[in-house]
Amino acid sequence: MAKSDRKKALRGRAGRMKGGRGSGRASAGQVRLWGRHAVEAALKNPDRQHFKLSATREGVASLDGELPEGFPVVYADVADLGRLVAKDAPHQGLVLECAPLENIFLDEVLSAEPNRPLLVLDQVTDPHNVGAILRSASAFNAAAIVTQDRHSPPEGGVIGKSASGALETVPWVRVVNLARALEDMAEAGYWRIGLAGEAKDTLAQALPAGPVALVLGAEGPGMRQNIGGHCDALAKLPISSAIESLNVSNAAAIALYAVATR
Amino acid sequence: MAKSDRKKALRGRAGRMKGGRGSGRASAGQVRLWGRHAVEAALKNPDRQHFKLSATREGVASLDGELPEGFPVVYADVADLGRLVAKDAPHQGLVLECAPLENIFLDEVLSAEPNRPLLVLDQVTDPHNVGAILRSASAFNAAAIVTQDRHSPPEGGVIGKSASGALETVPWVRVVNLARALEDMAEAGYWRIGLAGEAKDTLAQALPAGPVALVLGAEGPGMRQNIGGHCDALAKLPISSAIESLNVSNAAAIALYAVATR
Repeated sequence: MAKSDRKKALRGRAGRMKGGRGSGRASAGQVRLWGRHAVEAALKNPDRQHFKLSATREGVASLDGELPEGFPVVYADVADLGRLVAKDAPHQGLVLECAPLENIFLDEVLSAEPNRPLLVLDQVTDPHNVGAILRSASAFNAAAIVTQDRHSPPEGGVIGKSASGALETVPWVRVVNLARALEDMAEAGYWRIGLAGEAKDTLAQALPAGPVALVLGAEGPGMRQNIGGHCDALAKLPISSAIESLNVSNAAAIALYAVATR
Repeated sequence: MAKSDRKKALRGRAGRMKGGRGSGRASAGQVRLWGRHAVEAALKNPDRQHFKLSATREGVASLDGELPEGFPVVYADVADLGRLVAKDAPHQGLVLECAPLENIFLDEVLSAEPNRPLLVLDQVTDPHNVGAILRSASAFNAAAIVTQDRHSPPEGGVIGKSASGALETVPWVRVVNLARALEDMAEAGYWRIGLAGEAKDTLAQALPAGPVALVLGAEGPGMRQNIGGHCDALAKLPISSAIESLNVSNAAAIALYAVATR
């Protein structure tokens, strides 16, 4: 964004410490985000409540936009900020305390834009991978990612950093029962394709023209059998036998690319 | 691999502590690898010298194949192994001390198999990304990855774990001068495509039928100008304006997929 645009305010909801959000996650009601893209996107997200920004002066200066007047900023040095984040995490002079986002319901997503793919993650728990998947989901215009509440990581700084801002913009639907959610997707007209190395067809062969939900399992165990059973088709990526599988975020990126270019 | 295959030996070169390898990297002459896939692949790599395996009994039992008689194993518990690896690194009961691999020269790669793409990385330094890129390079049969010695991470445990065995199988060419290496690729008949968000054509539009070298820059700064100037074409991935760029390992995976399915 041009320097001349920088006078506009970062417009999120600052400092309304309402607390009590009903989702049951993040019981302390706080999430800590770091890194320029992640913090900037969180500050610009009107659905995100902000509590406090701990930052270096350089960090604040690097933001695109101005903080609202009276925004709670605690200036700190790089080492102080280092103590607030995961070990060796690249905070880039910006650490934001905020509230987790409101839960999004599957119904809201299914009734919206069927041309955009859904990305369903079964037991993908590594926060770097989930963050990178959010980033790719944003890049390829996915309608949402859908995870099972019990088997997915909570919002947090590592996901936020890896998502590079996409944590604020890609709807993340957490459901109690993933098999049930897959049934709802079928009823809404989505063709559910599970990525599985043992499948006969490649993804390119299996992709239909209409609404698609891509289902990916964790590395190693893969999709749970019950989840594979709730897919309309299984498909593989055309990889060599030299390696067992791709990194799950790389597999997700390729699958989203294949949908975007079908 | 089936249990019945497990009697065959893990066949790498064990315990020949030759030292003095001339590449100038890893001056102590040691690399520490961890995780089942990484350690198993290193043990099976006949070009890898092994010094010592520190492992739990479960870790050794999880290996596909048997250690050669007299292989130096130090049994340890999970906490002891945890002290040998990066913080919270998932060592899976296996930590291997070994020598770095011999350097591979660009000539050896260029004269080999022109149908397989080359992957050129300009200043990609994050070891998780480099490891994931090696894994995708193996999956999509790349001939090699090429990096500039001064701007790429040394072999190590994080790369090895992320590469999931591919560190042992994908040739990694480290060159002194990347621009010069790109000239050599052109002379060998490779069409050099630099991935750049500002390009007009998409990668699918820019891909020729013949030998291809894919050039990727670091996230943030992107390719250095001099490197972009040594490409035959620049191309972008078809991503939304909602996000600045993809994670570099995800971009590499998509580009390799696009080449594999052209």
